[in-house]
Amino acid sequence: MSEVRSEVLIKGGRIVTAVDDYTADIWVKHGRIEAIARDLSIDSATVHDASGLIVFPGGIDVHTHMEFDLGAAQTVDTFETGTRSAAFGGTTTIVDFALQKQGDTPKQALDRRLAAAEPQCCVDYSFHIILTHVTPEALAELPDLVNHDGVSSFKMFMAYPGVLMVEDADIFRAMRKVGAHGGMINLHAENGSVIQALIQEALEQGNTSPRYHMLTRPSIMEGEATHRGIRIAELAEVPVYFVHLSAEEALNSVVEARDRGISAYAETCPHYLFLDESEYDRPGFEAAKYVMTPPLRSHACQHALWRGLKTDDLQIVSTDHCPFCYNESPFGLRKSKQMGRDDFEKIPNGAPGVEFRLHLLYDGGVNAGRLSLNRFVQLTATAPAKMFGLFPRKGTIAVGSDADLVLFDPHQRHTLSASAQHSNADYSLYEGREILGKVQKVFLRGELIVEGDRWLGRVGQGQFQRRSASGRV
Amino acid sequence: MSEVRSEVLIKGGRIVTAVDDYTADIWVKHGRIEAIARDLSIDSATVHDASGLIVFPGGIDVHTHMEFDLGAAQTVDTFETGTRSAAFGGTTTIVDFALQKQGDTPKQALDRRLAAAEPQCCVDYSFHIILTHVTPEALAELPDLVNHDGVSSFKMFMAYPGVLMVEDADIFRAMRKVGAHGGMINLHAENGSVIQALIQEALEQGNTSPRYHMLTRPSIMEGEATHRGIRIAELAEVPVYFVHLSAEEALNSVVEARDRGISAYAETCPHYLFLDESEYDRPGFEAAKYVMTPPLRSHACQHALWRGLKTDDLQIVSTDHCPFCYNESPFGLRKSKQMGRDDFEKIPNGAPGVEFRLHLLYDGGVNAGRLSLNRFVQLTATAPAKMFGLFPRKGTIAVGSDADLVLFDPHQRHTLSASAQHSNADYSLYEGREILGKVQKVFLRGELIVEGDRWLGRVGQGQFQRRSASGRV
Amino acid sequence: MSEVRSEVLIKGGRIVTAVDDYTADIWVKHGRIEAIARDLSIDSATVHDASGLIVFPGGIDVHTHMEFDLGAAQTVDTFETGTRSAAFGGTTTIVDFALQKQGDTPKQALDRRLAAAEPQCCVDYSFHIILTHVTPEALAELPDLVNHDGVSSFKMFMAYPGVLMVEDADIFRAMRKVGAHGGMINLHAENGSVIQALIQEALEQGNTSPRYHMLTRPSIMEGEATHRGIRIAELAEVPVYFVHLSAEEALNSVVEARDRGISAYAETCPHYLFLDESEYDRPGFEAAKYVMTPPLRSHACQHALWRGLKTDDLQIVSTDHCPFCYNESPFGLRKSKQMGRDDFEKIPNGAPGVEFRLHLLYDGGVNAGRLSLNRFVQLTATAPAKMFGLFPRKGTIAVGSDADLVLFDPHQRHTLSASAQHSNADYSLYEGREILGKVQKVFLRGELIVEGDRWLGRVGQGQFQRRSASGRV
Amino acid sequence: MSEVRSEVLIKGGRIVTAVDDYTADIWVKHGRIEAIARDLSIDSATVHDASGLIVFPGGIDVHTHMEFDLGAAQTVDTFETGTRSAAFGGTTTIVDFALQKQGDTPKQALDRRLAAAEPQCCVDYSFHIILTHVTPEALAELPDLVNHDGVSSFKMFMAYPGVLMVEDADIFRAMRKVGAHGGMINLHAENGSVIQALIQEALEQGNTSPRYHMLTRPSIMEGEATHRGIRIAELAEVPVYFVHLSAEEALNSVVEARDRGISAYAETCPHYLFLDESEYDRPGFEAAKYVMTPPLRSHACQHALWRGLKTDDLQIVSTDHCPFCYNESPFGLRKSKQMGRDDFEKIPNGAPGVEFRLHLLYDGGVNAGRLSLNRFVQLTATAPAKMFGLFPRKGTIAVGSDADLVLFDPHQRHTLSASAQHSNADYSLYEGREILGKVQKVFLRGELIVEGDRWLGRVGQGQFQRRSASGRV
Repeated sequence: MSEVRSEVLIKGGRIVTAVDDYTADIWVKHGRIEAIARDLSIDSATVHDASGLIVFPGGIDVHTHMEFDLGAAQTVDTFETGTRSAAFGGTTTIVDFALQKQGDTPKQALDRRLAAAEPQCCVDYSFHIILTHVTPEALAELPDLVNHDGVSSFKMFMAYPGVLMVEDADIFRAMRKVGAHGGMINLHAENGSVIQALIQEALEQGNTSPRYHMLTRPSIMEGEATHRGIRIAELAEVPVYFVHLSAEEALNSVVEARDRGISAYAETCPHYLFLDESEYDRPGFEAAKYVMTPPLRSHACQHALWRGLKTDDLQIVSTDHCPFCYNESPFGLRKSKQMGRDDFEKIPNGAPGVEFRLHLLYDGGVNAGRLSLNRFVQLTATAPAKMFGLFPRKGTIAVGSDADLVLFDPHQRHTLSASAQHSNADYSLYEGREILGKVQKVFLRGELIVEGDRWLGRVGQGQFQRRSASGRV
Repeated sequence: MSEVRSEVLIKGGRIVTAVDDYTADIWVKHGRIEAIARDLSIDSATVHDASGLIVFPGGIDVHTHMEFDLGAAQTVDTFETGTRSAAFGGTTTIVDFALQKQGDTPKQALDRRLAAAEPQCCVDYSFHIILTHVTPEALAELPDLVNHDGVSSFKMFMAYPGVLMVEDADIFRAMRKVGAHGGMINLHAENGSVIQALIQEALEQGNTSPRYHMLTRPSIMEGEATHRGIRIAELAEVPVYFVHLSAEEALNSVVEARDRGISAYAETCPHYLFLDESEYDRPGFEAAKYVMTPPLRSHACQHALWRGLKTDDLQIVSTDHCPFCYNESPFGLRKSKQMGRDDFEKIPNGAPGVEFRLHLLYDGGVNAGRLSLNRFVQLTATAPAKMFGLFPRKGTIAVGSDADLVLFDPHQRHTLSASAQHSNADYSLYEGREILGKVQKVFLRGELIVEGDRWLGRVGQGQFQRRSASGRV
Repeated sequence: MSEVRSEVLIKGGRIVTAVDDYTADIWVKHGRIEAIARDLSIDSATVHDASGLIVFPGGIDVHTHMEFDLGAAQTVDTFETGTRSAAFGGTTTIVDFALQKQGDTPKQALDRRLAAAEPQCCVDYSFHIILTHVTPEALAELPDLVNHDGVSSFKMFMAYPGVLMVEDADIFRAMRKVGAHGGMINLHAENGSVIQALIQEALEQGNTSPRYHMLTRPSIMEGEATHRGIRIAELAEVPVYFVHLSAEEALNSVVEARDRGISAYAETCPHYLFLDESEYDRPGFEAAKYVMTPPLRSHACQHALWRGLKTDDLQIVSTDHCPFCYNESPFGLRKSKQMGRDDFEKIPNGAPGVEFRLHLLYDGGVNAGRLSLNRFVQLTATAPAKMFGLFPRKGTIAVGSDADLVLFDPHQRHTLSASAQHSNADYSLYEGREILGKVQKVFLRGELIVEGDRWLGRVGQGQFQRRSASGRV
Repeated sequence: MSEVRSEVLIKGGRIVTAVDDYTADIWVKHGRIEAIARDLSIDSATVHDASGLIVFPGGIDVHTHMEFDLGAAQTVDTFETGTRSAAFGGTTTIVDFALQKQGDTPKQALDRRLAAAEPQCCVDYSFHIILTHVTPEALAELPDLVNHDGVSSFKMFMAYPGVLMVEDADIFRAMRKVGAHGGMINLHAENGSVIQALIQEALEQGNTSPRYHMLTRPSIMEGEATHRGIRIAELAEVPVYFVHLSAEEALNSVVEARDRGISAYAETCPHYLFLDESEYDRPGFEAAKYVMTPPLRSHACQHALWRGLKTDDLQIVSTDHCPFCYNESPFGLRKSKQMGRDDFEKIPNGAPGVEFRLHLLYDGGVNAGRLSLNRFVQLTATAPAKMFGLFPRKGTIAVGSDADLVLFDPHQRHTLSASAQHSNADYSLYEGREILGKVQKVFLRGELIVEGDRWLGRVGQGQFQRRSASGRV
C-alpha cells in the first residue's frame, strides 16, 4: 500500500470538470487531492507532466456485468479482467450488480458479490442490487442496505418473464420502500410479456436468426414500459432511473415526465449512439455480436438520443458491459454467442464495451461537436457520481476528492479493436473504428495504474464504495 | 308479430340526427322507415302527433350488465327488467356482455347469454364477448365470431388480477387476431396489479370503508393502463376502445394517440360527468352506493371529460349499468352492496344507470349548453351504432333504417329517483335530480313500447343484432 | 323562373350525407326536398334515374376568388365563368370575398361585390368580407353585417405587409367585435413581416425565379402565425378559422388548441394534399403555375394534412380558386403569371381549382381509402355549411333543404386537364391526372344545371345566401 | 490600485460551485485565485477566517437598469448607487443595457454608457445593447461589437409599440446577423400590439388604476410572443434568451423548444418567484410599487417557474433592477411612481431588486428545499457567466478565475426592507421579509469591498468586462 501514500504532482494540465476548465497543477497526497494551484513545486511528490494534456476525473461506469451468472450463460470477464479493461479506458469506478437468486435475500446476494469482487477488482467498485423476489423479507432488508451497507440503488426488470421480470405490484412495493429511505429504483424497461409473445410467434414460424432478436423487441414496447415505470414511480414517490434507454419512444416518456418535474432519469450506452439496427443485416451468425437488450435501434432513435444528451434528458452514458465471446473459446460455451446459433433466444444478450466508453464519447461526441468538454465529464463521471451517491469522493476534481484522474492526449490517434482491448471478449462492436484522443495515464486514488499500454496497477487494489442516497440530484 | 307489420305515421316532429335537424313526417312500415316527407297522409297508418316534440333515433347503450354473474355477486336486473328500464329511458338497443368463464370457449359464453336473453329482452340487444382465457382454442374461434356470428367486439380486463385480468401477452395475441378480422378490442384499463397492492396495503392497515375503494384506484393507474393498452394496440394494429374512461390522465393518453392518427376510442358514463369523488365522504355505508370501477373522480377529471365530449376525443356515452341493491333485498345478498359492509373489496362494483342516460345528457348536456342536439344524438345513438357495427340499421333516422324512435318533450319537467326507475335496483345515483325534457313515446322497430309511464311492449320482443365490423369509423 | 317550380324525382340513388348512407328516392318541389322515400312515384315530376349512382349534397366551396382585383393583378375568372366551372365540378355554392379597399367601409366592399355577382352567378353564392382597415367606422358596421346582412365571417391577412396585412392590435379589435356578435374570423396565417425580409434578401441576392416564392415562405412562419392567431382569438373569445392551412407546424398549433377545447378550425386545399414542393424544380418559368400562397410543402406536411382530415383537426377542404393564365392571353397581362417572369414577387399568387375539388377528393380520398364517403360529404358540403351559417338550407340531403344535388357515377373514368375545365385559366395543376368517379348531373335548387359535359343552367340564376352565425359548430 | 495586488487567504470555508462542495483554503494573488488547498499558510496574505461560512462565487446579475433614461422616466439609481447596492447583496458583476436611441448606432449607444459607467461603477460591469432601429448601419456594426468590443448580446423589445418595439422583420434581420457572428438575442416577449389595444380600451373606459397595468398585460400574450420569438430565432439560427419570463404559457413555449433541442433560454426574476398578482389588490396607489413589466402573475405561474428552475428550463435568475421612488423625492418626478397617479400607463415600469437576489433565493430556494446549493450558484453566477461570455473569468471558484467571492453566513437572520437597502429607491417589494442567511464579506477581484454593513470599496473600481460569445452553452 506504499504507493497510495506517496505524493504525486500533476503539472500544467488542462483541468476539466463538469463546470470548470482551467490550467493548473494538482498535488495529490494520501490518495486525495491536496491542492490545485498555479506553479506548485512539491519536493516530496513524483511529478507527471500534463502539459498539452487534458485532466479529467476518472470515469464512472454505473452499468457493468462482471462474471455475471445467469444460469444458462455467464459473462466472460472476471472482476479482474473486466475492471482492468475499464482502467485502460479511463474508468476508475464501476457500479456492477448483485443478483438476488431464488431463495436469496438481497443482502445475501450482495455478500456473495462482495466476496467475489474484493480480491480481484483493479478499480473501485460498488453494486446495485437486482431484486427478483420482492418478499416481505426482501423488503425488510432494504432500509438497512441503503443506510448502512451503502447500496442505495435497486434494479428491477420489466422484461424476461419467468426469469427476471417482477410484476408491477412488486415493483410498486419495492419502490415505496426504497423511496421512503433515500434509495432509487433502476428499471430495465421493456414489456417482457408482449415481447415473449412476439418471440414465441417468431420461433413458431421458424424465424431463428439473430435478426429476430431485434424484430421481437420493438422500440414501442420499450416506450410503453418506460411510461409505465414512470407512472408507478410517481405513485410510489421514488426517483426512477432507466438503464440502457435506446428508443425514441422511451426518451419521449422521460422528457414528458421531466417537463412536469418528476424525478425520472436515464442513461444510454455508446452502442445506441454509434451503431444502429442495420448491423442485424450482417450475413450468417455475425449479427449475434450485436445481440444485446434492448437491440440497436433506428437512425431516428440515434438522433433523439444525441438530442437527449444535449438537453440533459439523458444524464449518464454507461456501457452495459456484458461481454461474451463470439467464437467458442477456452472460457466455455456458456460464455459464447454460439449457444444461440440455432435459436436467437438462446444467444446470450450483451456485448463488451467498458473499455471504449470515454474514447467513443470523446471522439464521436466532443470532437464531433455534439458535446462540450464539460458535458463529456458530466456524462461520464460527475452525473454518475451524483446520481448514485459517490459524490464528492468521486466524479470531480476538487480539493478533498479521491485522486482518480485521467491524463488524456487529445491529439493521439488510435484504432479500436478486439485485440486492443483488455477484456476477455474476443470481439469488439467497434472493430477498426479510428479515434482521435487517447487515455495516457490513469490514477486511482493517486496511484498510477495505467500508462499508455502498460498496466501498473495491482489486482485487488480496487475498494468497495459505500454510497449515500441515490437519485437526489 | 302483428304490431310490427302495422304502419305508423309520426307527424310534425323536429327530427334530429347526428347531422340534420328539420321538421317532417315519418312513415314507418314493416318496422322500418319508409318515407320522410312534408305533409304525409297515409290512411293505413296510426298517426302520432309529434308537433312540439323532438324525434331522436332510439338510444344505444353499449355497456350494460344484465343478470351478470361474477360468482361472488350478481347484478340485480334480469334481461327483462333491465331492458324494460332501458326502454323507459329511450334506449332501444343494448350491447351487453358474454363472459368467458373457466373452461368456456368464447362461443360457449355467447351461446349461454343468447339463450338467457332471447326470451326476456324488451329491446334489441347484442353482446361483446369478455375474453378471460386467451387459449389457442379461444383465438381460433374469433374470426368466425366476427364474421359469422355478428360479434365484432371483445373486451378484456387490465384490472382484477386472478379474476378477470388478462396479461399483456394475451391481450396482444387477442388483439392481433381480432384486428386481422375486422373486430375491435374493448379494454377496461386500470393497472390491476398495482391496485391490488394498494388494496392489500389498505386492508392490512384496517382501512375497510367504501372510501378506500376510491383511494386504492388512483386515476394515474387508469392513465397508465390506457397508455399501455394503446401502445399494445398500435403494435397489434387493431382499433381499441376504452370502456368507462373516467380519468383525465387516461383521456390525455387517448388524445395523444388520436392526434397521431391512431384508432383509439373511448366512452365515458353519466356518473363521471355528473358526480365526483366527494360522494365518498358520505357517512356510514352510504358511500357504497357509489362504489363502481373506476371510482368517481375529481372536478378536474369531470371538466376534462366534458371537454373530450366536445372535441370528439370521447365518442360515446354509455352507462355501465351494473345494478345492485343497496339494502338487503328479496333478490338476495349476492345482489346487494351489503356484502361489503365490513370490507370495501367485497362491495359489488357497479350502479344502476341504463334508464337515465338520455335524460341526464339532455338536461346536463344540451340544456346546459355543453352539447348541441346533433352531438347529443351522435353520442347516444349514432356513434355507438357506427362504432359497433349496428349502422345503418340502428343509430339514425333515415329511410330504410329500423324505426327505433324516441319522441321527446323538451319542456316537460320531472325528477330522477329510485322509485321512478324500472330497474330492480333500490337506489339511484341521482336521487332527486330535476330534469327538463322527458321521453314521451318510444318505438322499437315501429312498435310503440313506451308511452309516458306506461309499458306497452312485450317481453321477448327484443331481437338479437348481428353486428358488422367494429372500430372502422 | 318556371324551372324552379317544376318537380323532380330522383330515383334509386345511393344517398350519402355526412352521416347516412342508404338507397331511396328524392322528390323535389319548389326547389327543396319534399320527400325521401322508397318507391316514390310522383306524376308531376320529371324523373331522373339514379340507380348505380351516388347522390351527394352539392359541394360548397368557401374559398374562391372570382374577378378578384388586387390592383396589380386580377383573377381571370368572372363570376360567370368561375361559378360555371364550379357547377361542372359539383359545387353549387361558393363563398367568395369582398375586399375592403382604401377608403371603403366593409359594407361598401360588400355592396360592390354583390352588384358584380348578382347578374352573373351560375350557382349560389355568399361573401366573406376581407378587413384591411380596422377603423372605428369599420368596427361599427360589423354587428349589422353579421345580424342583418348575412355576412358572419371576416377574413384578415397576417401576410402581405403594406398591402393586405393587418397588425395584431387591429386583428384583436376586430376579433372582439365579431366574436361578441356571432361571427367568426378567418385568418391567412403567415408571418408577413419576416417573409418580407426573406423576399427582400432573396431579391437583393438576385434570386428571382419562381422557386424563391417557396423558399421565402417557410412553413415555420405559417406555424408561427397560426399559433399567434389562435392565442389572440383565445384572448378575444372568438372562433377562428385558418384558410388554406398547408404546413405541419400550423396544423400542430391547431391540434394543440383543439385539444384544449379552443374553437380553432382550419381548411386545407387539394393542391396541398396532392402536390408538393418538388413542383418548383420544374425548368424555366413553368414553376410559376404552382406559385400560390402558401406554397406547396413537403411530403411530411402532406402526410400530416391527410392525418388531420381523418381526425377532424382539419374540418373543410376548399379550393382557394384564384385563377390566372400562365401564358399571356386575351385577358391581359394583369391576369397572367407572365407578370412575374423576371421577379417571383410579381407573379400573381394563385391557381385555378374550383372545378376539380370533388373529383380529386373522391378519387384520391375515397378511392384511395383515406376518407369514408360520409367524411367526403362532410368535408366538401356539410362542414362548410355548418361552419359558415348555411346549414340546414345547404350542405345536406334532408327534407326541407335546398335541392342542391350531385348525381355521381363512381365507375366513370376521366382525365383532368386545362382543356376539360370551364375556367378561363389556361392551365391546370393536375394536367393529365386520371380520375375514377365523375359528376353526372348537378341540380341547383332542383334545377338541372349540368348534365355530363352540357351546361343547362342560366347566367344569373345563383342566389345570394344570407348566412347565420359562423363558427358555432 | 495597491489593494488589488495584495494577497488574501480565505481559510476553512465551505466552497460551493455549480458542481462542487468541499472545504478548503483559497489563496488570492493579483486579484485571481492562485491556489485552492487544504491547510494553506501564506505569510504574505491577509487571512480571512471562513470557518462556518459558505464561499460562493460573486453573483452576476445580467439584467439591471442603472440611470436608465427612457425619456419620460429615469431610474433612480446611478451606476454608483446601483452597483454599490449590488455589492452589498453579493453581486460582483452586472450586465446592464446600452439603449440605441433615435439616430444612434449601437456603438454610439455603447460608448455613451461606457463613459457614464466607467467613473462610477463599484462592481464589474458589461452591457447588452438594446437595438431599436435595425438599420443597415446598425446591422453592419454588429459583428465588430461581438468580436472586438466584447458585447455579444443584443436585446430587442416585442412590446412598447412606437417606443421600443421592433417589428418581426427587423428582429429576424438582427437575429441572422448576430447569430452568424457568435452573439445571442435577448427578447422582451410580450405582444405589444395587442397589449396596446387593451390599454387603450381600459383607458377609454376610465380604468386608470395600477391594477389595470396587470389586467392589460395578460400572460397569454407573453406566451404568444415567446413562441413567436423562438420560431423566428429557429429560422434565423441564433440562440435566443427571454428576459424576465413570468408566465406559465411562456415557459411552456420554452420547454417545447428545448425538448426539440432548440437553443432557447430564459431568466426569471425574484419578484415572479416570491410575489403574485394579489399585490395589485392593495388599496389606493400602493399597487403602483408592483408595476413592473411583465406584471406579477398567478400562483400557477409561480409554481411553474419554480418547476422550471428545478429542471433547467429556466437557466438564470436576474433582478430586472429598474428602480423608481414610490413617493415624490429629491430625485425628481421623472424618477417616481407618482407620475402615473392618474393613469397607470404613465407609471414608470420597474422596481428595485439588485440587492436582495441572493438573499431571497438562498432563503426561499435553498432553505425552502427547492434548490440545492449547487443549483443556487449555477442560477446566480455560473449560468449567467457561461450564457453571456464571462466564463471562466467570472462565475466560478477555480484556479485562475477572478477572486470575486462571497462569504456567506447561513445562520444569520435579518430582515429585508427599504431602509436596509443601498439603492436610492425608497421602497422594497419585500418590506419586512425575514431571511435566514446573510452575505458577510464580498471580494471583488480579491479586494474586500463589503464587510457586514460596511462599505470598503471604491467608486469606479468596477471594470468593464469584454465578453466572448453568448448563448453557446
